[in-house]
Amino acid sequence: MEIAELGEFGLIRHLTDTIEIKNAETKKGVGDDCAVLEFEAGRQVLVTTDLLLEGVHFDLQYVPLKHLGYKSAMVNLSDIYAMNGRPRQMTVSLGLSKRFSVEDMEAFYEGLRLACDAHGCDIIGGDTSASMTGLTISITCIGDARPEDVVYRNGAKDTDLVCVTGDLGAAYMGLQLLEREKAVYNSQIKKEKVASKQINAEDDFQPDFSGHEYLLERQLKPEARKDIIEALAKEGIRPTAMMDISDGLSSELFHICTQSHVGCRIYEDRLPLDYQTASMAEELNMNVTTCALNGGEDYELLFTVPLTMHDRVAAIPGVKIIGYITKAELGLQLVCRDGVEMELKAQGWKAI
Amino acid sequence: MEIAELGEFGLIRHLTDTIEIKNAETKKGVGDDCAVLEFEAGRQVLVTTDLLLEGVHFDLQYVPLKHLGYKSAMVNLSDIYAMNGRPRQMTVSLGLSKRFSVEDMEAFYEGLRLACDAHGCDIIGGDTSASMTGLTISITCIGDARPEDVVYRNGAKDTDLVCVTGDLGAAYMGLQLLEREKAVYNSQIKKEKVASKQINAEDDFQPDFSGHEYLLERQLKPEARKDIIEALAKEGIRPTAMMDISDGLSSELFHICTQSHVGCRIYEDRLPLDYQTASMAEELNMNVTTCALNGGEDYELLFTVPLTMHDRVAAIPGVKIIGYITKAELGLQLVCRDGVEMELKAQGWKAI
Repeated sequence: MEIAELGEFGLIRHLTDTIEIKNAETKKGVGDDCAVLEFEAGRQVLVTTDLLLEGVHFDLQYVPLKHLGYKSAMVNLSDIYAMNGRPRQMTVSLGLSKRFSVEDMEAFYEGLRLACDAHGCDIIGGDTSASMTGLTISITCIGDARPEDVVYRNGAKDTDLVCVTGDLGAAYMGLQLLEREKAVYNSQIKKEKVASKQINAEDDFQPDFSGHEYLLERQLKPEARKDIIEALAKEGIRPTAMMDISDGLSSELFHICTQSHVGCRIYEDRLPLDYQTASMAEELNMNVTTCALNGGEDYELLFTVPLTMHDRVAAIPGVKIIGYITKAELGLQLVCRDGVEMELKAQGWKAI
Repeated sequence: MEIAELGEFGLIRHLTDTIEIKNAETKKGVGDDCAVLEFEAGRQVLVTTDLLLEGVHFDLQYVPLKHLGYKSAMVNLSDIYAMNGRPRQMTVSLGLSKRFSVEDMEAFYEGLRLACDAHGCDIIGGDTSASMTGLTISITCIGDARPEDVVYRNGAKDTDLVCVTGDLGAAYMGLQLLEREKAVYNSQIKKEKVASKQINAEDDFQPDFSGHEYLLERQLKPEARKDIIEALAKEGIRPTAMMDISDGLSSELFHICTQSHVGCRIYEDRLPLDYQTASMAEELNMNVTTCALNGGEDYELLFTVPLTMHDRVAAIPGVKIIGYITKAELGLQLVCRDGVEMELKAQGWKAI
């Protein structure tokens, strides 16, 4: 069905009609000039926003719209957890070009709602517009936390432990894999065109993802670490500094160290890596440590805790201590496997 | 200066470094995973978001970037006032193609900050990204209000008075004027090309805006009606329903009547029109009533108040009573100058 058949208001109604409000804090969702929220007394409100643009942040040639909806929500939810908060509400704005159908938007919303449902987040509004060019997605996520629980980037102290969750570099390897298979597919199409054969590559082409399923999942379906925030709360641990790893570990370490006026020492052999990440890096002749340090989109958490919490934090499944915080003048150091120290470089993979 | 010289983080720092936080409610602005807000006890939080896309919502051939920044903020501020709230914070996300310079973004932010300063609104964050295509602007505005002050679209009652602020149709006429001058300019360029002359239309061309300054201002520099919200509060008037006029009076009347389960009777001779709107409509051979009913982007307020408040609301400068609310079965009626009644059509000018 073409979107024009429903019109702007019709499409919004169609996509949001069955949304159920889950939070008592949401007094009014879609349908007025503003959404209306009312938080428990004494709560602080957390606000984050992310812009996702076709051709820059995603490639619809290999990202299904349902996955895109899921991921678009997840990258915002992750920012709320990175403040040690709980996500509550989300606004979703979409710029749509003519090539999208109502069914496409249903798929996008299906993924979006799956993510929001899993994290107890209400979709409370947004804006839908025609776009002259590609798909534009802008999401704002709102969460809350008790003021004493909010964790900033600037609280890391000398001797604190540096922890990361999950493993690193897999999402980046997943992207490399998708790009490789896309190149193979496109060159196959080109060959068939040159040979003046009927183009049926789409039917024939089987991308080779075997043994790399985890990498694809990490790239296409990242998970915000609600479980870690809950585990930390259960253990009574409030990190001194925290952020999520969206631009790569190196880049995020720079943010924390700069804002906290400290340095850090990270151990290469402590970086958490999945087997598939390592084997894919070898296949592509890439340095796996570089991938773990600079590959983005892992959406894991990077945080610091006082040294005294070593045993408690080490006991949480999925958390790995990778080093410690030092005085600022010692800089950001990576201790390599052979014992050599290297200065870390802030090399976020997402340059403007 | 090219944006690449500064990089994403450098550009954000450059544009937001000098921003001063004005509201005690803003605990943390730009610089962490989330902004952190803390509202007074017992306040409700209002959230609105708008997406503005090049080629759909604005044409950079005639919209200066400073004006665009101003207007982008204003359309969001207007939604907060439309709930009878006060704007407090704003996030600003930008997708930028290579043709924009640092100076361009400074101009955009200058307009944005001018609007925010005038309305006591803090810029608390956002997202900046490369764009493969045109300029993408996504703004989310947050405000607050006491729960008993919030005005929805669904509270209009039979016999309530229907009021609008300012005048209608001028922004739409301003757009027509800009489009006309653009067409003249482009055809002049074309002619010079055909004649193989050097193209210097840009130097020679003088768009003819004399006598239409008000229309241009209404299109390029709309003002959210903070003054009206303050005047209503001073008079102790809480509208029964309210919204801002962004898609045109007819469309907004439909929203209020549908959500309130009522009808309305609007008088053509009561529609507030500026002299320049009427004269421009005549010049363009358009029906001025149609322009007032269906022209968008006025960002005036449409609201309803109980009949008993007639004298108090009529005394507020800039407010005009244009009709009254009826039972739903009477529909939405326009009483024309000649006494003939016509059914109103919801014909928002902004179709997807």
